[in-house]
Amino acid sequence: MVAYTDFFLHDTLDNYEDNAKFTSEYLPKLEKYRADLAAGLLPENTVELPAPATELAAKQFNAVKYLRENKLLTDEEFSITDSPAHEIVAKIAKGEWTAVQVFKAFAKRGTIAHQFTNCALDLFPDEGLKRAQELDEYFAKNGKTIGPLHGLPVSLKEQMNYKNKITHGGYVSMINNIPTTHAITTQILENLGAVFYVRTNQPQTLMHLCGNNNFIGHSRCPYNLGLTSGGSSSGEGAIVAFGGTPVGIGSDIGGSIRGPAAFSGCVGLRPTTNRFSKAGGISGGAGQESVPAVEGPLTRSVDDIDFLMDAYINEGKPWITDCTTYPLAWRKVEKPKPETLTVAIMYDDGIVKPTPPIARGLKVVAEKLAAAGVKVVEFKPIKTQLARDTVNKMYCCDGNYMQRKLLADSGEPLCKLTKWSLNYGDGAKVYEVADNRKLNIIRDQLKQEYTNFLNENDIDFIISPTYSNVAPRPEEVYNWSYTSLFNLIDFPTLVIQTGLFQDPAVDKFDKPFEARSDLEALELGNYDPEGFVGAPIGLQITGRRYFDEEVVAAGKTFVDILKVDLFNLYK
Amino acid sequence: MVAYTDFFLHDTLDNYEDNAKFTSEYLPKLEKYRADLAAGLLPENTVELPAPATELAAKQFNAVKYLRENKLLTDEEFSITDSPAHEIVAKIAKGEWTAVQVFKAFAKRGTIAHQFTNCALDLFPDEGLKRAQELDEYFAKNGKTIGPLHGLPVSLKEQMNYKNKITHGGYVSMINNIPTTHAITTQILENLGAVFYVRTNQPQTLMHLCGNNNFIGHSRCPYNLGLTSGGSSSGEGAIVAFGGTPVGIGSDIGGSIRGPAAFSGCVGLRPTTNRFSKAGGISGGAGQESVPAVEGPLTRSVDDIDFLMDAYINEGKPWITDCTTYPLAWRKVEKPKPETLTVAIMYDDGIVKPTPPIARGLKVVAEKLAAAGVKVVEFKPIKTQLARDTVNKMYCCDGNYMQRKLLADSGEPLCKLTKWSLNYGDGAKVYEVADNRKLNIIRDQLKQEYTNFLNENDIDFIISPTYSNVAPRPEEVYNWSYTSLFNLIDFPTLVIQTGLFQDPAVDKFDKPFEARSDLEALELGNYDPEGFVGAPIGLQITGRRYFDEEVVAAGKTFVDILKVDLFNLYK
Repeated sequence: MVAYTDFFLHDTLDNYEDNAKFTSEYLPKLEKYRADLAAGLLPENTVELPAPATELAAKQFNAVKYLRENKLLTDEEFSITDSPAHEIVAKIAKGEWTAVQVFKAFAKRGTIAHQFTNCALDLFPDEGLKRAQELDEYFAKNGKTIGPLHGLPVSLKEQMNYKNKITHGGYVSMINNIPTTHAITTQILENLGAVFYVRTNQPQTLMHLCGNNNFIGHSRCPYNLGLTSGGSSSGEGAIVAFGGTPVGIGSDIGGSIRGPAAFSGCVGLRPTTNRFSKAGGISGGAGQESVPAVEGPLTRSVDDIDFLMDAYINEGKPWITDCTTYPLAWRKVEKPKPETLTVAIMYDDGIVKPTPPIARGLKVVAEKLAAAGVKVVEFKPIKTQLARDTVNKMYCCDGNYMQRKLLADSGEPLCKLTKWSLNYGDGAKVYEVADNRKLNIIRDQLKQEYTNFLNENDIDFIISPTYSNVAPRPEEVYNWSYTSLFNLIDFPTLVIQTGLFQDPAVDKFDKPFEARSDLEALELGNYDPEGFVGAPIGLQITGRRYFDEEVVAAGKTFVDILKVDLFNLYK
Repeated sequence: MVAYTDFFLHDTLDNYEDNAKFTSEYLPKLEKYRADLAAGLLPENTVELPAPATELAAKQFNAVKYLRENKLLTDEEFSITDSPAHEIVAKIAKGEWTAVQVFKAFAKRGTIAHQFTNCALDLFPDEGLKRAQELDEYFAKNGKTIGPLHGLPVSLKEQMNYKNKITHGGYVSMINNIPTTHAITTQILENLGAVFYVRTNQPQTLMHLCGNNNFIGHSRCPYNLGLTSGGSSSGEGAIVAFGGTPVGIGSDIGGSIRGPAAFSGCVGLRPTTNRFSKAGGISGGAGQESVPAVEGPLTRSVDDIDFLMDAYINEGKPWITDCTTYPLAWRKVEKPKPETLTVAIMYDDGIVKPTPPIARGLKVVAEKLAAAGVKVVEFKPIKTQLARDTVNKMYCCDGNYMQRKLLADSGEPLCKLTKWSLNYGDGAKVYEVADNRKLNIIRDQLKQEYTNFLNENDIDFIISPTYSNVAPRPEEVYNWSYTSLFNLIDFPTLVIQTGLFQDPAVDKFDKPFEARSDLEALELGNYDPEGFVGAPIGLQITGRRYFDEEVVAAGKTFVDILKVDLFNLYK
């Protein structure tokens, strides 16, 4: 039997925790923080849960289904919150809905999302309401909207700087950090008309594909509260999938938009780097550019990804205020006809084989796409082990200097998956610059090799698992190889839902698996058919660097073929 | 008195040279290499020099003027080689000139350029002629050109991989390196119709703002053979300014396109990073991405920069084959009207004050632009010392690991300015990754600070010296602060000629200078009015990141105002 601690070879994890300091200096602040969060759960927005959330978790409770079947919202509230973002703003712009009306519906559904999934770190519906009122006044006075997102609620991963609000990024040591200006993306969204009322959960260090921290713990998958909503954009996945916000903004350095989108049951885009501003926020990777983080949107439809990127890039023009973003317009790309497309499907990356539900998802998608006319070929993984080794070394190659500082400053207890990711690559080994450069050279060779592969074989897109499994149990997600590959080579990747869900009756191993490595044994050993009931099956679509628009357009075609509609489930 | 060796504090320069190894293993190869180069000087392309080049250098000989006044070319050859690149390809496309006719004229003028300036490392006119013949045959047969550069001679900095030819990048240790494929840019240019016949000189390590190496020594400024043509694109500056090629391709990590353009007397663009492919070539900075190198064009007119970038980017689409380049089209930007522009002039960066000719150039330009309606303000340097310290640390922060390897492999003697730049920053001190990341954070802050400065003050462009002096004497150029600033913050920068030349009668210090630092004493101590006769006065125009097109368009406006025409000098 393999234990996750068997992998702790590279960072002794000494010199991080200091219980006395944490307890005396920080615990009172954390208690205050939690009380402030609780105060944001306004009575008009909350419901009585059928049981405490922890009990519901043990029962693998499906909160999305419960919401619908028990009509926790009025018909109007359902109608509003089950509308795509682009329709919401269109209705507000035509005067059919007010920003306040829209806001109230989402504030309620979002608050309920938090009650079930623990997705929020910061809830401020009073401020959101005030902003919505101001937008309505502006509209009444001027007869026009202030921008393409006028009145649209947008949730924000907490790590993004928020003016005059604590911004800690999951680090207890940062609990005193109160930025005086918004992150550039936050400011752009606000300028375009967005309404903010919730900032969402994330793991300690932002380096778990799950989510746990010393602020409020982990967030839950709304389709099965016993599972994690993923990480590091943990709360975004949960609140978007539950319908508590039409659009959420997450960030991704190893899978942190895509894991939550896949696990929670929504859609998420990891754009190519530097199209979406990430300036202004907390990160343990400041100054690290071997594998850059990106920010990007999560929504419930591919159309809304397109809508948001169009508005954000073409109207927001992030390059004006953030000189690290490129002035690449978001191009209008037509939905491609299936018969014009060739996709390569990665059935196994050679590192950890997919579990039965994911294998089924890949097979069904391959069949349906082929039946619709798409040319489907098998993708033989290219140096995936080298890619994983390289990216994992990049994460830690400062010898965990920055993470150690951010953690040790408060002495907070280390979460299980913090210990895990601090042991990535060579863990606490301090790299010299020349060795970091060697990693960069390997990365660039891999990037070119994947590019050549697509070019030489006329392949448009790669479809792959987001992770070897559906949403895992909390703190049981170890291997990021399916997602971090595309961070390393920086290819734009969209997570879509297949419309399929884990089914204990069919999603069984045909025969006992034979693990090819300890890592695979650890991962696959965690799967049992009965423990993942109803978990969504999401997959990745990857295209060429900077051709994000083509990836999104193809996503629309695939979703059409798969007939996925997340706004109308359980109706 | 300050000596340059006083600055050698950071790399002891041990463990580089090995005279026995160099002499026995490499010297015979170098002799063969030089003989091969000499064989490329075909009798029909060479002239008898008025004296050996070294004697001419001592006399500060003006080779450009001599070429014209002594009619070293026929009227037709002058007519062809004094045409802008865009006119040359237009005439070939209309059948007015053949590719062979064009080629022969440039091969002759380029070979004479080499005789005077020592600009070439590799001359292969027979291959160029064959290629031109093939292009003419194609045109005759198909009635159309193969691409927008059909028949245009283009010179290439030697460091760029050239299929089946030695590519050494100035390192003797690489003399056995024979790539099997072209660099991506070389291949793109060839696909577009370019004709190659010359690869040009560069310094040892590619890290001098001057040029010297153990292959053929340094290149000379064609306007004053006693001065350097600059570096590291040393040969490109000389051959372009002399008219031996309509377009040259250089590279720039600290000023290596701009120094040669300014010193030699031509025009050069350092584009924003990743618009022009640099994939496939020799560099001591492989994997280094704190301050990335770029490639870019040198020409004799700003119009030709625009022409080349348009063809290369819009027709060459480098992002298809090099996934590190961005799919940013080269936009057509109208030449702006003077009265719509605000420029900030950097009269002094606070590190090394300009010498009298440069100060005069700035003053004249400011006056002429203002008279034409441009709003001219003074630029107060922003943290230039921090920028210089940061970028110099970045150059060496692998503890010179890669440079040492490339140099020590042959044990070749170190050139004076190799010793100088190996002592930049902290020289041989091996940085840990966390410290490299701190430098990156400083860089990004500076980048944003300069961006904010432009935005907040409504400034369109910064005009600055390229270097504190005009072309310096060989191996006497130490401070890169005027150019490397814009590498650090990655702003696109164009070097234009003012049409002014150093004049001993007027370019004198008003009073003895008082140096603010040893570096300034070293640099200014090298200036005397009589030693730089007729050296061109070029300046930098800098704009916002990725707005290269606006910089080039403004360059056209400024050149119009200054009435500069490099094709018709001395007529």
